[in-house]
Amino acid sequence: MNDINPSFLQSQAMPDVQSAHDERALPIEQVGIRGLRHPLTIRTRSGILPAVGNFEMDVALPAHVKGTHMSRFIALLQKQEEAIDSASVVSMVREMLPLLNAKEGRIQFTYTHFVKKAAPVSGVESLMDYEVTWTAKAKQGVQDAQDAIDVELNLRAVVPVMSLCPCSKEISEYGAHNQRSHITMSVSLDPRTKMTVEDLVAAAESQASSELWGLLKRPDEKWVTEHAYDNPKFVEDLVRDVAGQLQQDQRVLSLEVEAENFESIHNHSAFARISLTK
Amino acid sequence: MNDINPSFLQSQAMPDVQSAHDERALPIEQVGIRGLRHPLTIRTRSGILPAVGNFEMDVALPAHVKGTHMSRFIALLQKQEEAIDSASVVSMVREMLPLLNAKEGRIQFTYTHFVKKAAPVSGVESLMDYEVTWTAKAKQGVQDAQDAIDVELNLRAVVPVMSLCPCSKEISEYGAHNQRSHITMSVSLDPRTKMTVEDLVAAAESQASSELWGLLKRPDEKWVTEHAYDNPKFVEDLVRDVAGQLQQDQRVLSLEVEAENFESIHNHSAFARISLTK
Amino acid sequence: MNDINPSFLQSQAMPDVQSAHDERALPIEQVGIRGLRHPLTIRTRSGILPAVGNFEMDVALPAHVKGTHMSRFIALLQKQEEAIDSASVVSMVREMLPLLNAKEGRIQFTYTHFVKKAAPVSGVESLMDYEVTWTAKAKQGVQDAQDAIDVELNLRAVVPVMSLCPCSKEISEYGAHNQRSHITMSVSLDPRTKMTVEDLVAAAESQASSELWGLLKRPDEKWVTEHAYDNPKFVEDLVRDVAGQLQQDQRVLSLEVEAENFESIHNHSAFARISLTK
Amino acid sequence: MNDINPSFLQSQAMPDVQSAHDERALPIEQVGIRGLRHPLTIRTRSGILPAVGNFEMDVALPAHVKGTHMSRFIALLQKQEEAIDSASVVSMVREMLPLLNAKEGRIQFTYTHFVKKAAPVSGVESLMDYEVTWTAKAKQGVQDAQDAIDVELNLRAVVPVMSLCPCSKEISEYGAHNQRSHITMSVSLDPRTKMTVEDLVAAAESQASSELWGLLKRPDEKWVTEHAYDNPKFVEDLVRDVAGQLQQDQRVLSLEVEAENFESIHNHSAFARISLTK
Repeated sequence: MNDINPSFLQSQAMPDVQSAHDERALPIEQVGIRGLRHPLTIRTRSGILPAVGNFEMDVALPAHVKGTHMSRFIALLQKQEEAIDSASVVSMVREMLPLLNAKEGRIQFTYTHFVKKAAPVSGVESLMDYEVTWTAKAKQGVQDAQDAIDVELNLRAVVPVMSLCPCSKEISEYGAHNQRSHITMSVSLDPRTKMTVEDLVAAAESQASSELWGLLKRPDEKWVTEHAYDNPKFVEDLVRDVAGQLQQDQRVLSLEVEAENFESIHNHSAFARISLTK
Repeated sequence: MNDINPSFLQSQAMPDVQSAHDERALPIEQVGIRGLRHPLTIRTRSGILPAVGNFEMDVALPAHVKGTHMSRFIALLQKQEEAIDSASVVSMVREMLPLLNAKEGRIQFTYTHFVKKAAPVSGVESLMDYEVTWTAKAKQGVQDAQDAIDVELNLRAVVPVMSLCPCSKEISEYGAHNQRSHITMSVSLDPRTKMTVEDLVAAAESQASSELWGLLKRPDEKWVTEHAYDNPKFVEDLVRDVAGQLQQDQRVLSLEVEAENFESIHNHSAFARISLTK
Repeated sequence: MNDINPSFLQSQAMPDVQSAHDERALPIEQVGIRGLRHPLTIRTRSGILPAVGNFEMDVALPAHVKGTHMSRFIALLQKQEEAIDSASVVSMVREMLPLLNAKEGRIQFTYTHFVKKAAPVSGVESLMDYEVTWTAKAKQGVQDAQDAIDVELNLRAVVPVMSLCPCSKEISEYGAHNQRSHITMSVSLDPRTKMTVEDLVAAAESQASSELWGLLKRPDEKWVTEHAYDNPKFVEDLVRDVAGQLQQDQRVLSLEVEAENFESIHNHSAFARISLTK
Repeated sequence: MNDINPSFLQSQAMPDVQSAHDERALPIEQVGIRGLRHPLTIRTRSGILPAVGNFEMDVALPAHVKGTHMSRFIALLQKQEEAIDSASVVSMVREMLPLLNAKEGRIQFTYTHFVKKAAPVSGVESLMDYEVTWTAKAKQGVQDAQDAIDVELNLRAVVPVMSLCPCSKEISEYGAHNQRSHITMSVSLDPRTKMTVEDLVAAAESQASSELWGLLKRPDEKWVTEHAYDNPKFVEDLVRDVAGQLQQDQRVLSLEVEAENFESIHNHSAFARISLTK
């Protein structure tokens, strides 16, 4: 924070309202900033790719302190220079606690993660996009050292897939209604574990009626159409099959899986949710 | 506006900054309010139904006037008491011009319009919802009388339907990908003409692979599935068929039709647009 | 459900895929519908007003059942005829469990609630709009009777207010930055208690730098400006003061309060959150 | 497109439904894809920065052709490797016409543009984010050569600023309500002209009550507060002053300026719009 020292000195002469004593006896669980966009580079299976993160950063505030110093969140984020991934978020949240004089804190950011995929028949490559959120929560232990800070790490991904209705297939002479669905997985991870976004995405795509691609040629479209017809799934099947898959993954401490079908025969969605703690 | 006279008197003593002379020689085409929510009752084929309108109201401001009086838009809207429909919007926009000392002005509002529909086989009734927007633009003629005000009326509806891909059907052994699509129609109408929201919605639903319903029993779901398979449509077919239908309607002076397919095999949309002036 | 009996009979001949036995040994916490819009009338302090509800309805599904019957949620909602309020949601969720053969279930809906307010000086009346969400969760007790169903009721309101920054006021020669803020309160209530939306909204408005109005005349605008300057509040003050207020309300079993300032000096928000269980 | 030749060959054997003859005698103005996300690097004043573009790409379709080939839009975009800017969009749209066998076409993409700015007193640097949209429309001239393609280029930027109400300042003993506002500028440019996003953003920021920063220290916050109080602006002033500024810029062929104030005393916006063709 050397670069902001001059203004810090200037600031000293001004009243520091935020540091005043507070009499209301109410601690605040989270106080911070939200909706801060920041350019990022992301380490992906397809190389280092550009992204824009939407950040939420907050700390716990004890009952006797009037306010936090919001500008320090921004300063912390602005000085990040390297490709941001789960490891750098964990380091950042550890650094955040002493900087904000806080015992607990959280950094969360959402961005678009791209994965290069080959179409199922033609092999043509194209990028698919997924909304990904990393959350790191830090808590200061009894000692005041940075290594006494416990960090919980959570990864969330929204995976668009195709779902084809088993009931529609069963009762119809021909055809079956199908639609785009979102499978949203949120998993707690040991911060030292290696779980990539691509690993998590695969758990959802492997269980859908069909996964999606950015670019399909006609032979691919034929394959996707027939593959989905051969794998009909209710929204209930989607959450059960994805949750069952993640349940067996040693790296996952707890999980929440939700599926939402943007029904092609209605103007509302069907959805289902399972959460499991091991 | 009798109810606000007392505060008007109070206001007289305060400087009226908005009425000051402006030197920048730039007229303003539209100035007003946006995002104002107001409870409404709507005359529909299924009776008078509740709704919430999201209003945008504006006037043209001549180069020499500094500002408009924003609170008068709200006052005008708040005093509406009856079920609002195209006719009441036309009256409201006529009343707005003298109230705001304006030569041109516009009222636009968007709301959810419900239509009770019977399922195709079981006949079970349920409501379908459509996003509808009425726009009325008024222009003062040479004389200063209210009957010298010309009004242009526009009706826009977003109709969710099902589209089934002809290419997918043609090249696949079985099945065909399908999805929810939005058909958005915007038509200019003679303000004296009777064109209902239900009429406009029908133009889109009759041309889709299938229309949608809130509630379907299994025999209905079978019918919808097979009906859609029998009526495959590209996004290009949807806009052409709906535009062709509206083109023949005497009440429509000009039209714009857009179709957007939320493709079930991709994570992006296909769309098409046609506009026609007769 | 008399009206849908004929199609029920028709349905009997078709395979009922949803009722099949499931082998995956995974119960589903929530399965149902989402994003269903329905016209409502709402009992408010200013009379019965129109609204449109956005509904989410779901049940718990035991491990051995393949799927739920989605159309029954719609049928249940469509047959409501009277003004919907917290009491009718509680009845509806009680009725939902046997209808869906479920032991647990939930109904949630969000709508725009209007309150008529008088401007602070002129007394001019206008409507203010608030986003309100009711959630009712039902759980079947040991006996299978409807009166053995426990219901938890939650009310959530988003209240737009003005916040004026105490730091900006303190350090500046004149002026102080201020902005629109959202105070979001979510409170658990005893289902038999009378807590109105208006009561909850008042808790937030009384603690803000200033409440908002749809329509203000100049003397009102002067009052709001000076009143806000006299009541500067950090985002931390907003959550503490609103939480403190709700903490003393006997009807509230537990609460969560969040404030978000759409900062007028930044392009991001400041936010804070407190949750309390009594 | 060498990499997709194999699948092209495979495709030859399948019926090409899109290329069939159409009998409806209705040309389509725009048909293509929408909502396609793609990672980008952007040339900015602060260096090459990461971004994610949201693309819309379409062509005109003559009356006799049944459909366009959607996958070619994606293939065209996926092969872009270099930092994308207005020049590369112009090249891409020129290349698109022959690839899609089209006489007219359009590429539009929206992304978040970051600019590093120094705080007004402390000089602390931080990034500000702006939503930017480039649109390039191409039209084939009489000859069929690529250099006979005319291109129209349009740049749109949404600039968040602070606006302080002149009326509130004038009538109040102390203070003045202020809020975040969006100034949206859309300018037509000669495709050979050099107009940077930073130039366009400056036109809006220089005319607001105050521009915004990501990071401000206390002396900066004092400056911003007082500066805004010294520069009160109605929404009408914002559009006039920004339009007046752009009117004098030789590079701008036509312009549309809109300002929207997210009023801190109401729950709706005030807005104004000016458009000018030179």
